[in-house]
Amino acid sequence: MTRLLWIALLVCTTGVAQTTDDSKRASTNVPEAEYPRVHSDLRVTFQVKVPDAHKVQVRIWSDEKLYDMTRAEDGTWSVTIPPMVPGFHYYGLVIDGAEVNDPGSETFYGAGHLSSGIEIPEAGVDFYAIKDVPHGEIRQLRYYSEVTQSWRRAFVYTPPDYDINLKARYPVLLLLHGGGEDERGWVVQGRTDIIMDNLIAEKKTVPMIIVMDAMYAHKPGESAPPVTLPPGSPGTIHIAVPPTYSEVVTKDLIPTVDKRYRTLADRDHRAIAGLSMGAAYAMQVGLGNLDSFSYFGSFSGTVMRDLNVETSYGGVFKDGADFNKKCHLMFIAAGTAEQSRLEAARHAREELDKVGVKYVAFDSVGTAHEWLTWRRDLHEFAPLLFHESNH
Amino acid sequence: MTRLLWIALLVCTTGVAQTTDDSKRASTNVPEAEYPRVHSDLRVTFQVKVPDAHKVQVRIWSDEKLYDMTRAEDGTWSVTIPPMVPGFHYYGLVIDGAEVNDPGSETFYGAGHLSSGIEIPEAGVDFYAIKDVPHGEIRQLRYYSEVTQSWRRAFVYTPPDYDINLKARYPVLLLLHGGGEDERGWVVQGRTDIIMDNLIAEKKTVPMIIVMDAMYAHKPGESAPPVTLPPGSPGTIHIAVPPTYSEVVTKDLIPTVDKRYRTLADRDHRAIAGLSMGAAYAMQVGLGNLDSFSYFGSFSGTVMRDLNVETSYGGVFKDGADFNKKCHLMFIAAGTAEQSRLEAARHAREELDKVGVKYVAFDSVGTAHEWLTWRRDLHEFAPLLFHESNH
Repeated sequence: MTRLLWIALLVCTTGVAQTTDDSKRASTNVPEAEYPRVHSDLRVTFQVKVPDAHKVQVRIWSDEKLYDMTRAEDGTWSVTIPPMVPGFHYYGLVIDGAEVNDPGSETFYGAGHLSSGIEIPEAGVDFYAIKDVPHGEIRQLRYYSEVTQSWRRAFVYTPPDYDINLKARYPVLLLLHGGGEDERGWVVQGRTDIIMDNLIAEKKTVPMIIVMDAMYAHKPGESAPPVTLPPGSPGTIHIAVPPTYSEVVTKDLIPTVDKRYRTLADRDHRAIAGLSMGAAYAMQVGLGNLDSFSYFGSFSGTVMRDLNVETSYGGVFKDGADFNKKCHLMFIAAGTAEQSRLEAARHAREELDKVGVKYVAFDSVGTAHEWLTWRRDLHEFAPLLFHESNH
Repeated sequence: MTRLLWIALLVCTTGVAQTTDDSKRASTNVPEAEYPRVHSDLRVTFQVKVPDAHKVQVRIWSDEKLYDMTRAEDGTWSVTIPPMVPGFHYYGLVIDGAEVNDPGSETFYGAGHLSSGIEIPEAGVDFYAIKDVPHGEIRQLRYYSEVTQSWRRAFVYTPPDYDINLKARYPVLLLLHGGGEDERGWVVQGRTDIIMDNLIAEKKTVPMIIVMDAMYAHKPGESAPPVTLPPGSPGTIHIAVPPTYSEVVTKDLIPTVDKRYRTLADRDHRAIAGLSMGAAYAMQVGLGNLDSFSYFGSFSGTVMRDLNVETSYGGVFKDGADFNKKCHLMFIAAGTAEQSRLEAARHAREELDKVGVKYVAFDSVGTAHEWLTWRRDLHEFAPLLFHESNH
C-alpha cells in the first residue's frame, strides 16, 4: 500500500513538471516560472492559478485573439494555443474582465503599461542571440531638458571598443520606439546591444553609438493630443506634440550626447530611425533638421501612407536630385504580414520614385507588427550607415 | 435642461479625476495611470477595473495586510487605506485569489517575479531625489561565467567624472540585493546612482564604481537549495550554493570588472555589502576572501543572528586585534521597525564586542524591512568607504 502510494505521488509530480512533453520554459519567463512553455511545434501552454475566478483568458496582442483557459480542480487555469509566429509577442491574462500580467513572465513596457511578453524562438536564426564576442554596454543617461523643464532618461549603446580606443570618435544613431512603448523598448524587446555586438564582431557594420530616447515630451502647460491604444492598455496615451519632441532632440538631447560621449558631431555622422509611431517622429525630427541628420529609417511607419513628395515635410523631396545630395540613406521597411504598413511603405516608395529620390526598401518576410520585424530592420539598416561619410 | 445636464457631467468628470482632494499620482505609476494616488496624510487610494470579479483586494507586502476593495457599478474596485510608512513598498492586487500586478504601477523585481510597487514620499528628505548635479551612469555589463558556464548580467555605476578624468582609477563596491530580488534591485528600487551622484556632489564620499550583481548561480548539474518566499510569490526560489557564488565573484566578476573598468584592483580598494539575504552572501564572499575585500556591510542581515566570534567564517573574528588590522570597516545596520533584524544586528555587535572587533552600527529610525532602510544604509555606508587606504 505504502509503496503504491509513493508510485502514485511520483507519477503526479512528473505530470505537474511537464517532463513528459517536449515543451520548454519560454526564455522570457522569470527564473522560477515553469509557464508559459513553448512546444517544439511552437504551440504554447499558458498556466496560472486563480482559484476563485469565473473566467480566465489569454490575449495575444499580435493576433488580436482571446483564448479561454480551462479550470482544473485545484484552481489552476490552463490552455495550449496553436503554433505562434516566431518573434516577440506581448500578451496578457484576462481575469474576470481585467487584463493583467502573467506572474510567470518578465514585463515589457508596451501600450502604456508593463505587459507580459513571450519570445517564440526562430529556428536557425541567431543574429539576436548573445554570443562569445566582445560586448558593448547599454548606459543609462539622465539629462535635463530645458524645453520640457524636466529630467529625462535615455539609454545609450556604446560599442565594445569605446572604452579601449579612448581617442576614437563615433557616429550616432537615434533610435525611436513605438506608440505605447518607451526608451526601454529597443534595449529590452529590441535586443539592440546584442544585434550590434554581433554585427560589429562580424565587421558588418561601423561601430556606432546608439541613443534610445523616449518621445514623450511636453512643455510646461502644453498638453499632447491623446493617442488611442489597443485593448489591454490604459486606453489612450499622450506622446508629444511632434515639434516639441523635435526641440528636445535638437536643443537638449543632441548637445548632451555630443558633450557626454565621443561623437562625430555633424550631420554626416548622424542617423535617425524609428518604428511605427517612432517612424513618424523620426521623419518629422530628421527631415525637419537636415543640418543635423543625413540618414533616415522608417520601420513599419503608418506615416508612410500619407507621404506626398510635393507637400510632405515642407516639400523636402520635391527636387529629388537635390534631396539625394543631402541624404546619405532613406530606408523604408515593413513586414510582409502587416498589410497596412506594407502598403504604406509601398506607397511611399512609389511617391519617391516619382521624383527620383533614392531609397533602400526592406520587406521582412512573414513577420507582422512586432519586434522580430524591427530587430531585422535594425540588422539590415545598421550595416548601411556611415559609409558615404568620411568616417 | 441641457445646461443642467452639462453641469452634472462636469461635476461627474471632476469627481472621477479626483481633483477635489489633495491626492497625487504615486511617482511609481506608469505615465498615464491616475491610480494609485497618495494623499497628503499618506493614505493611499487604489483603483482598478475588474468588471466580473467576485473579490478584489490590495496586499501590501511590508505590513502583511490585505485590504478589501469595494465595487462600483461600472466594475471599478477601489479602496483607501490608512497612512503608509514613507519608503518603497511592494504590493499586489489579489483578484479572485490570484495575486497580480496593478496595471497602473511600474514593475519591480521582488519575491521572484515582477511586482507592483509604490513610493511613499518622505517629507523634507531629498538624498534620493534627482538633483541638478553632475550625473554618473548605470551601465549594463554582460559577462561570461566560466564557473556557471553561462552569460550573466550585472549593472555598474560609474561616477560623474569617470569619462572626464580618463586616467583616474576608482575603488569598487560590490552591492548585493535581497532574496527574491535581482541585479535590478539596487538600480531601480535602491536609486543607487541618484544617492551616489548627490553624495559625490556634496563631497561626502569618494567617487567609486559600484557593481550590482545577481547572486543566482549554479554550476552545471548543481542545484541550489530552495528558499521560501513570502505570499504573492512563486513560493520558492533557488538562489545559489554560497560557495558557488563566491567562486563567480572571485574567478569571473572581479577579473571582468578589473579588466573592463579603471579600477584600483586590490583589497584596500574593494568593499562588499548586501541587504537581507544579500548580507549573508556579502559576509560569506567577503570574509571568505580577505585577500580581495577589506570593507564589509550588512544591511538588515538575518545572518547576523547566528554570528559567533569563535566559529563563524572560519574563526576570522577570533583574534579581534588581528581582524581589525585587516578590516578597514565592518558596518552593521538594521531598521528599528524590523524587530528580528534589529535584534540580529544587536546580537552581532555584542559578539564582536567580546573580542574587540571594531564596527560601525547604524539603526535606521522608524523603517522596516524595505528599501528606505537600505537607501539610508547606502547613504551612511558609502561616505565611510576608502578613506583608510591610499586612494
